Amino acid sequence: MSESFKVFSDAFREQFADRLPSYLPSSGLPSARLREAMLYSLMNGGKRVRPLLLVSACEALGGTAKQAMAAACAIECIHSYSLVHDDLPAMDDDDLRRGKPTCHIAFDEATAILAGDALQTLAFEIILDTPDYDADLRCRLLKELGRASGQRGMVAGQAVDLQSVGVELDEEALQAMHALKTGALIEASVLMGACIACPDLNPDTEMHLRQFARALGLAFQIRDDIIDVESDTATLGKTAGKDAASDKPTYTSLLGVNGAKHKLKETMTIVHEALAKAGLEGSRLAELATFVAQRTH
Amino acid sequence: MSESFKVFSDAFREQFADRLPSYLPSSGLPSARLREAMLYSLMNGGKRVRPLLLVSACEALGGTAKQAMAAACAIECIHSYSLVHDDLPAMDDDDLRRGKPTCHIAFDEATAILAGDALQTLAFEIILDTPDYDADLRCRLLKELGRASGQRGMVAGQAVDLQSVGVELDEEALQAMHALKTGALIEASVLMGACIACPDLNPDTEMHLRQFARALGLAFQIRDDIIDVESDTATLGKTAGKDAASDKPTYTSLLGVNGAKHKLKETMTIVHEALAKAGLEGSRLAELATFVAQRTH
Repeated sequence: MSESFKVFSDAFREQFADRLPSYLPSSGLPSARLREAMLYSLMNGGKRVRPLLLVSACEALGGTAKQAMAAACAIECIHSYSLVHDDLPAMDDDDLRRGKPTCHIAFDEATAILAGDALQTLAFEIILDTPDYDADLRCRLLKELGRASGQRGMVAGQAVDLQSVGVELDEEALQAMHALKTGALIEASVLMGACIACPDLNPDTEMHLRQFARALGLAFQIRDDIIDVESDTATLGKTAGKDAASDKPTYTSLLGVNGAKHKLKETMTIVHEALAKAGLEGSRLAELATFVAQRTH
Repeated sequence: MSESFKVFSDAFREQFADRLPSYLPSSGLPSARLREAMLYSLMNGGKRVRPLLLVSACEALGGTAKQAMAAACAIECIHSYSLVHDDLPAMDDDDLRRGKPTCHIAFDEATAILAGDALQTLAFEIILDTPDYDADLRCRLLKELGRASGQRGMVAGQAVDLQSVGVELDEEALQAMHALKTGALIEASVLMGACIACPDLNPDTEMHLRQFARALGLAFQIRDDIIDVESDTATLGKTAGKDAASDKPTYTSLLGVNGAKHKLKETMTIVHEALAKAGLEGSRLAELATFVAQRTH
């Protein structure tokens, strides 16, 4: 990771951590416990990959980080709600996330279900309440967000994932599942950032950005599977080796660790080619992609 | 219930049951099981009170049922998702709803969590995808829906409700909880219907409609508590006397059955007065209000 990228991403995370709580005011909300559980889930030291992608895509196309900030908060609300529900006992049953007790452990199951529900609503509300976005842009952003989140995106991916436990998936099926579960929201992040900068985004640029984002989503997941095998629980901040132990198909179980590393390298070639076709290889999106593919947690 | 209202509401429910599945196409969705669980939860023989209110408010203000139909489907998706999550073991732990196994019993807990999640997203998507609504109207409807659903509305009400088990609430606190848990979505139904008919809704009419809807939401809840005490499980289609048994505060536990009936009568006076002030006492909203206050299940 270049020094300038590190400075940028650290500064962004700090700004982001200041902004997020403004959507959960300390007075005026009817349930203090619900608010606490939502805040706890949002402010958990995440890498903020999706917000970083959104802001970087906006800047790459001539917009500003300031313009992108509200949408970045919205996408993190969706991501955060999905983690809270994913960690529930009936789902992945995880007690630990990023080194801290998961929401249903820190609070209780019912509160975690409700916090996830309200975080999803909040994502939509944030975009609807942002004065900088006109009605057309709000609708455009919400459509991208909704499409990526629901029955055609992330939640569908989680449903397919649930049905895949103990089932032998081939590489194509595994990729299709992750394209929904992780890829859709990563694609939405990039496209939302691009739309904020360019409401009339050129269809070719849009296509290349979607190719970039889809490949990056795949790279993200392969790297995740490699990290899961190579790290111990202390480094990982969540239960290491959990996917393998729970008989979930992963890139490393399917291709071996070396095979997965090779696949990651191939995928990163596609990432950078698509970015070059969009004319954005020199932008921060390139550095961010490298960070995603090389991260160790 | 007048014969003409019965004919209208039966015909509406039939039309509504035809329309809802169009948002969950049988091909093209990645997870058939998720789709089934969503459909199962939506098509469960509900009374469709919120959609009826939305359509009736739209018609009362000069709009058509056809214009209102998409928003009516959206509001039912929100209501339906809330029931699915409410019935979960970590929440109210209900096995039966309207005489049928609840979603997590018919499917499994993880699928029920995801189906609820995706139904919430679908509500927002339906409004975003309706060509009849322009961008300004979409945003207006979505704002009303989001405000009523999230941390300032329904989910907050459920969180407050959870914290009230075994706690002695006074009438004011009970009313505040239900205003969030049930009232907010009923208010949104009325207002969304009104906005579809009149994008430039007169502020006085809006105020009276909100008063009408808030009082009706209260009447709805009082009637619910009376039904819970007076019915057996077979008639009710869900576990009778459950709230009292689980030590949840209700209007009947607080005021006695007769006291609750008196409170209901008083509340219905406010309902009809507010409707008269809005100049809509002659509309179907009046009949619908009477139906809500007199229903037996």
